[in-house]
Amino acid sequence: MIDKHSRLPLYVQLKDWIIEQIEKGQFKEGGKIPTEHTLSDMHEISRPTVRQALSELVQEGYLVKKRGLGTYVAVPTFTGDANVFRTFAEEMDYLGFEHDAKVITAKTYQASVELAEALLISAKEEVYEIVRLRLANGKPMAIRTSIIPVKFFPNLLEEDLKNLYSLFEQKGIYPARSRKWFQAVSATNEEANLLQVAVGAPLLLWDGMVYTEENQPLEKVKVCYLGSHFRFEIEQTRPPKE
Amino acid sequence: MIDKHSRLPLYVQLKDWIIEQIEKGQFKEGGKIPTEHTLSDMHEISRPTVRQALSELVQEGYLVKKRGLGTYVAVPTFTGDANVFRTFAEEMDYLGFEHDAKVITAKTYQASVELAEALLISAKEEVYEIVRLRLANGKPMAIRTSIIPVKFFPNLLEEDLKNLYSLFEQKGIYPARSRKWFQAVSATNEEANLLQVAVGAPLLLWDGMVYTEENQPLEKVKVCYLGSHFRFEIEQTRPPKE
Repeated sequence: MIDKHSRLPLYVQLKDWIIEQIEKGQFKEGGKIPTEHTLSDMHEISRPTVRQALSELVQEGYLVKKRGLGTYVAVPTFTGDANVFRTFAEEMDYLGFEHDAKVITAKTYQASVELAEALLISAKEEVYEIVRLRLANGKPMAIRTSIIPVKFFPNLLEEDLKNLYSLFEQKGIYPARSRKWFQAVSATNEEANLLQVAVGAPLLLWDGMVYTEENQPLEKVKVCYLGSHFRFEIEQTRPPKE
Repeated sequence: MIDKHSRLPLYVQLKDWIIEQIEKGQFKEGGKIPTEHTLSDMHEISRPTVRQALSELVQEGYLVKKRGLGTYVAVPTFTGDANVFRTFAEEMDYLGFEHDAKVITAKTYQASVELAEALLISAKEEVYEIVRLRLANGKPMAIRTSIIPVKFFPNLLEEDLKNLYSLFEQKGIYPARSRKWFQAVSATNEEANLLQVAVGAPLLLWDGMVYTEENQPLEKVKVCYLGSHFRFEIEQTRPPKE
C-alpha cells in the first residue's frame, strides 16, 4: 500500500501498487481499472499524482487509455509476419517472449482416404496426431494439431515433442513451405478449456499443409490462436492495372 | 409438397421441397435439417428415396453431411487469396458472386494527430470517413470503413460511393499496395446489427493502409468479414536453413 512516510514518491508507489494488481490478476488484462477519482480517494493522494502514475504506466505499455471510456489494462498482442513461414517458437524468439509447449495428446492411427490424399500416402498408412498447447510467458496462446506420416520418423513418440521441427531438422527434414488458410472462429468447449478463455471467444484458425524442401507433404497442421493476443501483418500488391 | 401422382420422381420433388425450405429460410444456413427418418415419415416416402435426394443435394453443395451428427445446410465460404491485394468487388467477381455495397455513413472531419501521421497529411486536414456494408448474393458479408484525405478527391461525397476504387481510377489514382494486419475479433453490437449475426460472432478484422503506385498513403482501411463465410488462403516460405 501507499506509505506517506516513505522516501519513494507517491506516484511511484501508486505505479508499483497498480503493477502488483495487474500481476496478481486483481486488475484483469483488457479490463478497466478504477477511475482517477476512485484511485485518488482510495489512496488519499491528489489527482495530479494519480494522473502522473497513470500516464507513465500508459507510456510503459501497462495501461491503455481509451478516449471517453477510461483506462484499461493493456492486452499484449503478438504481431506475426504472415508473409513468412515461422514456427511458433521462431515467432516467439523473434518477438522476445519466453515460450513453451505442452503435449496434450500424441497417438497414431490409420489415415482416412481423405487424409491420405492430402499427405500423398496410401490409405490406412499410419500417421501421428500430436496436439500441443503453445505457451508464451507461461500463458496458453495457441493449440497446434499436427498430423504426420509415421514413415518420416518411425520412433517420434519416444522423443521430446516440445519442439517438433528441431526433431525433423535433426533428421535432415526441413519444413520449407506451407499452404494454409486462415479464418475467424469461435472457441469450442474443449478449445476454451485449454486456452483458459470463455466458450465462443474469437480464435484465429490456421489450417493447411506443410511441405519439405523436396515439396513432399510433411504435416497437416491446424493452429488455433487466441484472437485477443494474436494478429498477423501482411503486405499485399495489387495486380498492375490493364 | 410431395405429389404421389406427379410424373416427377419423388426424390426430385423432395429435393425441390428442401431447396425451397432453404431459400425461404425455414432451414437455416449452417443449421441441421430433419433426419432421414423424420423426412421419410413427414412425406410418407421410403428411406432410400430420402437418401437419394439428400445425397444429390450434398453433391450439389446445398447440404453438408457431418459424420455421426446429421445433415446440415451448407454455409457458402468465400476463400480469398491473401497473397494478392484484391478489392471486395474484384474478389467476388473472381469467385463468381453477385455483389453490392450499401453506404452506411459518409462524412468529413478534421484528422487527429495520429490519423494525420498515418496518412502523411497535416493535423486538422479534412478527411472522408465512409462506412459501407458489402453484400454478396444479397447478404451482408463485410463492413468496410475507409478514411481518405479530401485532397485526393474534393467532391467525393457527390459521387456514387458503391465502388470507391473505380472512382479513384477514373481520376488516375491507382490503389496499388497495402500493408494490413488481420485478427479474429467478436462482433460488437453495431457490427452484429449490420451483418445480421449474433453479438459476439467471430469476425475477421483487417486493418491497415492502402498506398498509391507512388507510395502515397491513400486510405486507412478497416474491414470486418463474417468469420463464418470468409477465409483467406496464403502460401508461406520459410527462410532457408543456415
